Amino acid sequence: MKTIRTIEEMRDELKKVIGQSVGYVPTMGYLHEGHLSLVKRARKENDVVVMSIFVNPLQFGPNEDFERYPRDEARDKRLAEQHGVDLLFIPTVDVMYPNEMGIEMKVTKGTDVLCGRSRPGHFDGVATVLTKFFHIIQPDRAYFGLKDAQQFAVVNTLVSHFNFPIQLVGLPTVREEDGLAKSSRNVYLSEEERKEAKTLYEALKLGQKMVMDGEKDVDLIVQKVKTYITEHMNATIDYVEMLSYPELNEIKRVDEQVILAVAIYYKNARLIDNIILSPDGKQVETIIR
Amino acid sequence: MKTIRTIEEMRDELKKVIGQSVGYVPTMGYLHEGHLSLVKRARKENDVVVMSIFVNPLQFGPNEDFERYPRDEARDKRLAEQHGVDLLFIPTVDVMYPNEMGIEMKVTKGTDVLCGRSRPGHFDGVATVLTKFFHIIQPDRAYFGLKDAQQFAVVNTLVSHFNFPIQLVGLPTVREEDGLAKSSRNVYLSEEERKEAKTLYEALKLGQKMVMDGEKDVDLIVQKVKTYITEHMNATIDYVEMLSYPELNEIKRVDEQVILAVAIYYKNARLIDNIILSPDGKQVETIIR
Repeated sequence: MKTIRTIEEMRDELKKVIGQSVGYVPTMGYLHEGHLSLVKRARKENDVVVMSIFVNPLQFGPNEDFERYPRDEARDKRLAEQHGVDLLFIPTVDVMYPNEMGIEMKVTKGTDVLCGRSRPGHFDGVATVLTKFFHIIQPDRAYFGLKDAQQFAVVNTLVSHFNFPIQLVGLPTVREEDGLAKSSRNVYLSEEERKEAKTLYEALKLGQKMVMDGEKDVDLIVQKVKTYITEHMNATIDYVEMLSYPELNEIKRVDEQVILAVAIYYKNARLIDNIILSPDGKQVETIIR
Repeated sequence: MKTIRTIEEMRDELKKVIGQSVGYVPTMGYLHEGHLSLVKRARKENDVVVMSIFVNPLQFGPNEDFERYPRDEARDKRLAEQHGVDLLFIPTVDVMYPNEMGIEMKVTKGTDVLCGRSRPGHFDGVATVLTKFFHIIQPDRAYFGLKDAQQFAVVNTLVSHFNFPIQLVGLPTVREEDGLAKSSRNVYLSEEERKEAKTLYEALKLGQKMVMDGEKDVDLIVQKVKTYITEHMNATIDYVEMLSYPELNEIKRVDEQVILAVAIYYKNARLIDNIILSPDGKQVETIIR
């Protein structure tokens, strides 16, 4: 594995593998099994696997955790190499943003719901940095975890509306044994919070069971999920929403592919989780676009 | 030459020439010698030459000439083929914009001057459509006429800030015998307007002569150019400006590479012209980025 820190060096490396397929796994580092499941899949499907590690300031709000976002480069390098990454791209903020952006991207579709509402500008920053990475790395396929389902929907809009020649692969959320979705931000949890955090997935499964049992009424499902969370967690609910997926339109009834998504706040952490369901309640684990 | 109308067909054609260099000439059609000079250069420098013809609604304001912009596909095809275009891409508006864009580009740098001031949103539309074309065609080099100098500056920002793997080639404005810059919009001119339109280039050359003679004061040069136009044309001046180029910053003195640019309105036509000068007044004809 080669570690690369400049755009010029990355372009030179890619020149050596012209004609070979490139799979790309974008990350903010502090790797966990979720990231590594993306690497494994990329390794299977491509000649060359590129991972980027970049905590992108543009996608953090002024009161968010950019500064304290967990970082551990030595460990990340070891894990990336062990799992078959060929090129590990770790640029600095100056490499990615040598100037203020003279052209801004504004995501207008699918951002007035879920995390978009509580994180204004977040997806603009995601779209901007991914456009840059896609141009630097020129992958054939890019791999994302469906835990960040709204991000996957926005990337889908980015790639399809701007005609990027890239296939998107959205892969299942990887979970701890008790069901908590793996996340770099789980290190922010206190012992007690960590214990009750499994409630989120239980609540989602409760919603799924309702759909499987034939319930079509979105308001009713959302209400039950909210109640379950409130009764089992000492956290503040940011949202519980059920929307069409990946369009993220508001719906009244479960008549198409939907996402049931939750976000809660603890004192030092914000957790998100979701499941994507077909109209009969079966879980959709992988999305290829 | 193949004429191509869909994105899928274009991708299929490009698959056949993987590993060969691709030169791209974006146009709005109604080809003149300006466009064809770009094709000639692209032909020299690349294995495959792609031209697009697309009158992009996104870059026209509500009171601009989108509907009546001149079109002549049969003639364009003949000229493109004669000059060595391999793939002529003529998509419809529905092919380029099957949905409303869910992510918008907003050009924030270099748009509060020159045409950006009188054409709000114009360069947002240019950046959007070029991003799409760059992804569809994936050229090694893209060719632009420096007559649209602000457009070239914006494309330069687009390519450099978003790391497109594309070399930009800006080529000299091609002129009629009397000095009028070739433009598809010259067909809008009345006989009398066409006669006096050469004034624009005369005025630019007057400004250039002042710089060559050692004049450094931007306000003074701009004032002389304005006076010359007013005295020799029955037109309304939109702007006469001298700025750093390609940064398009306002300047007081000619101490770096500059653009002297003019735009005037006739009843049915708006004409633009410019010259790019080094600090000693020598004309800069070609810019490669």
